[in-house]
Amino acid sequence: MGPHVVPRQLVWLSRWQAVCAWGASVQHRTWAGVSRIPSLLSSGGALSSSPLVCRSSSSTPPGAPEVVLTQQRYPVTRLPFSVVSSEDLAAFERILPGGVVTDPEVLEASNVDWLRTVRGCSKVLLRPRTSQEVARILRYCHEKNLAVNPQGGNTGMVGGSVPVFDEIILSTTLMNRVISFNSVSGTLVCQAGCVLEELSRYVEERGFVMPLDLGAKGSCHIGGNVATNAGGLRFLRYGSLHGTVLGLEVVLADGTVLDCLTSLRKDNTGYDLKQLFIGSEGTLGVITAVSIQCPPKPRAVNVAFLGCPGFAEVLQTFSSGKELLGEILSAYEFMDAECMWLVTHHLRLASPVQESPFYVLVETSGSRAGHDSEKLSDFLEQALSSGLVTDGTVATDQTRLKALWALRERISEALSRDGYVYKYDLSLPTERLYDLVSDLRARLGSQAKHVVGYGHLGDGNLHLNVTSEAFSPSLLADLEPYVYEWTARQRGSVSAEHGLGFKKRGVLSYSKPPEALRLMQQLKALLDPKGILNPYKTLPAQA
Amino acid sequence: MGPHVVPRQLVWLSRWQAVCAWGASVQHRTWAGVSRIPSLLSSGGALSSSPLVCRSSSSTPPGAPEVVLTQQRYPVTRLPFSVVSSEDLAAFERILPGGVVTDPEVLEASNVDWLRTVRGCSKVLLRPRTSQEVARILRYCHEKNLAVNPQGGNTGMVGGSVPVFDEIILSTTLMNRVISFNSVSGTLVCQAGCVLEELSRYVEERGFVMPLDLGAKGSCHIGGNVATNAGGLRFLRYGSLHGTVLGLEVVLADGTVLDCLTSLRKDNTGYDLKQLFIGSEGTLGVITAVSIQCPPKPRAVNVAFLGCPGFAEVLQTFSSGKELLGEILSAYEFMDAECMWLVTHHLRLASPVQESPFYVLVETSGSRAGHDSEKLSDFLEQALSSGLVTDGTVATDQTRLKALWALRERISEALSRDGYVYKYDLSLPTERLYDLVSDLRARLGSQAKHVVGYGHLGDGNLHLNVTSEAFSPSLLADLEPYVYEWTARQRGSVSAEHGLGFKKRGVLSYSKPPEALRLMQQLKALLDPKGILNPYKTLPAQA
Repeated sequence: MGPHVVPRQLVWLSRWQAVCAWGASVQHRTWAGVSRIPSLLSSGGALSSSPLVCRSSSSTPPGAPEVVLTQQRYPVTRLPFSVVSSEDLAAFERILPGGVVTDPEVLEASNVDWLRTVRGCSKVLLRPRTSQEVARILRYCHEKNLAVNPQGGNTGMVGGSVPVFDEIILSTTLMNRVISFNSVSGTLVCQAGCVLEELSRYVEERGFVMPLDLGAKGSCHIGGNVATNAGGLRFLRYGSLHGTVLGLEVVLADGTVLDCLTSLRKDNTGYDLKQLFIGSEGTLGVITAVSIQCPPKPRAVNVAFLGCPGFAEVLQTFSSGKELLGEILSAYEFMDAECMWLVTHHLRLASPVQESPFYVLVETSGSRAGHDSEKLSDFLEQALSSGLVTDGTVATDQTRLKALWALRERISEALSRDGYVYKYDLSLPTERLYDLVSDLRARLGSQAKHVVGYGHLGDGNLHLNVTSEAFSPSLLADLEPYVYEWTARQRGSVSAEHGLGFKKRGVLSYSKPPEALRLMQQLKALLDPKGILNPYKTLPAQA
Repeated sequence: MGPHVVPRQLVWLSRWQAVCAWGASVQHRTWAGVSRIPSLLSSGGALSSSPLVCRSSSSTPPGAPEVVLTQQRYPVTRLPFSVVSSEDLAAFERILPGGVVTDPEVLEASNVDWLRTVRGCSKVLLRPRTSQEVARILRYCHEKNLAVNPQGGNTGMVGGSVPVFDEIILSTTLMNRVISFNSVSGTLVCQAGCVLEELSRYVEERGFVMPLDLGAKGSCHIGGNVATNAGGLRFLRYGSLHGTVLGLEVVLADGTVLDCLTSLRKDNTGYDLKQLFIGSEGTLGVITAVSIQCPPKPRAVNVAFLGCPGFAEVLQTFSSGKELLGEILSAYEFMDAECMWLVTHHLRLASPVQESPFYVLVETSGSRAGHDSEKLSDFLEQALSSGLVTDGTVATDQTRLKALWALRERISEALSRDGYVYKYDLSLPTERLYDLVSDLRARLGSQAKHVVGYGHLGDGNLHLNVTSEAFSPSLLADLEPYVYEWTARQRGSVSAEHGLGFKKRGVLSYSKPPEALRLMQQLKALLDPKGILNPYKTLPAQA
């Protein structure tokens, strides 16, 4: 502890007390704000008279470049499912009066993914309101050999939420009812189509928080979160959905309703069937309702946004945070300088700290503000005096907290404005996590606009993103299988939290052995023998 | 706040400061201390020359009453598996030189459950050291249609860990090697036969704790814990094994080794297969290795043992604890006055507080002793001044902590000394949880020696136990299906954490609908088509 420590610390802490004024001016927008999903769909149920065959649509929103059809960009062959007929549409209309959408303008938003990288050509969107309606639809589709693409908020990153060909889109949009909330235990039971942000608001008003949070919260549905085993920003504190989801109601491929919608924290009566559906991306069943354990709302939340001189310091700051913040550490996120450039440049957010090679966002959540401040203050003083951190700011009020979080949460949105995005979502040993980013930057040179790394460092989860002006097969060839092989050598996961969907289904074998793949295929065959549920997704095409 | 509050509080707090001297004299013994499992088995691999047919054994330990054979007490018919032949024994001896046990004295301990309520008549105990050996054994048994009973520490409560007839016992006792431990992330990878208490010691020496703890820790194996989805004493804080287990290695019924032994916190590459085996009680595969996330060891642990005047006060004290202790609340257990009578009478433990209708044990675990004491002190002052708690004591040092925990952890042991025990392990809405105990006490009258309630109140988990001099069919008829029907009416679980094993497999339908049962049976048929793994367990006998 040299004599210079105290002055530096004081300067820094005064900066912290002040919390710069930029915070209030930054508008917090979730993906909902940039969603292309029409907010009100015409629901007259008018049956389209256009022929129900697959061809390139011309209903692209004005100004946006047309997204190439998936079947044109990727080598994929349509499986021998039936094609939706007028008779089928009439049957759906009987099941869902007013809930059958065939308007091409409306369908466009459901055929294209959020990233605008894949595009199906479905001619029918179904919007049930109840599990029984979902059951009747699936029973019909199963009998008629019609393929079905379950869709929540359509915020997936791997093309799992839109059709590849002309699969029927089964949307949970209108299944957005809270069924019950126990304000003593914090157990929430709701339909699958509830939007995460709305659920957050609902439970926060009652003294609890959702155990998950993610950038897409303004659009994503809880059913989709569970179907994709979403990780997100609270994973470090509240763990996986495999632990926090208490029960599910699922409609199986043949229309059977599987009621495992218990609200019990503990239930060891037979196999825990709900686990099968968490992370199965709609390929084993359609989740129609969720029972989830909400933790008490922390009374004190602090966010520190810090600049670090190198990745080694990012890691050391994390170790120090785990030690000094202990049970109140609720998030530890990092982003590199290029990420900061993207959010400041494309989204006009202001950086709250001096330019640094790396930035970290540290969140604490606890029950007693005084204790938490003391812990955080000790942590920050140590981080600063040891040179792990060179600049920083702290926020405690909602507006500023959100503004700091926006810098991290909106990276994905900033990337999508930068050009075509190649996205990788990897689990790696933390000490090697950033090497891949540096390595790729050298490998790709000027081929890429940006090569950036950010993510949930506390969970060993790197979001590696590369942008280019437009989709480039040669750049892709330099990225893959290189990134996957690099990850496999570290025994990492080639999909930490995004799932496999359509775009990553071929890379499963980098992280799973053949015996596991075989068992997955057997489970798929058992639960969906005709393969009608979300075909071409998750599992590799069978030889 | 009346003027009398301060004096009462001071008296009470001085009692707390003092922490009575009884603590040090109480010896902390886990179930290991009362285990009847011979500590060293003769492992010469001598092949028994006795004929391998099923009949009542006479190798009961001296003094202990003989346990009736399961097939004599319960209506169950042996399935047409092969009978182990001398040729089979020779084959096992080739796979496991020195690891084939046929000595009846040794087998006795593995044929009878810890509660001494069920008894098989297996003639062979196999003790592999590696997964490859397990794979070779299962491949052989699968081919020869030989039934196999996987066995860990044999501490199960529902007869799941011992044979019903002559199933081969496949013990994980010698698979007790730690494979790796990452002292930065806290990820432990170990073989399935590691004893929980030994693992706890191992990780605690390295600054971490196991995410689960239970009374049987001195004997139970981690593989058995995972196979039965054990809950236990830390569930409230660290959640379910479905969240904390990161990976498993499992040998399937046909000898296929399924390597899902990842150490990644996040991995969304395909279906999460390991979840299938967590809680499947050895009926879908044999768990041979476990990767588990260990949380950092709390730097400060406090235990308060409190007397409450009624069950309503037990509940209110819990609410108050959640509010004032927040993130440091790590356990909230309760027991009734009859439980205290049993542990003081049969085990000669001393009660640290005045006689009360109910007792609760509150544990806090945190990273900063000063902050934690302040929170605990505020909680205790409020509980006392509001009359929720009438007496109490607090411990912070290891010896006294363990002594307080022993009062709760050793109830099960005390019950087993009281006579024949009818055990129920239920999840119920907390507000109705104790009504069933009072109700049964009135219903059974003098038929029962004791009707007691205790358990993990924080998780809504009641352990309801009834004792009688000896097994009584008429008492059983008064208990069942009454208890299950009562639980089903509350939409509770008829097995919160003990599983179904042999004794509860018939009651699954009280907590699960027919569609769920059918899917469970389909999964069993898929993974173990010949049904050789732990037959007669978990799923009801098929009609």
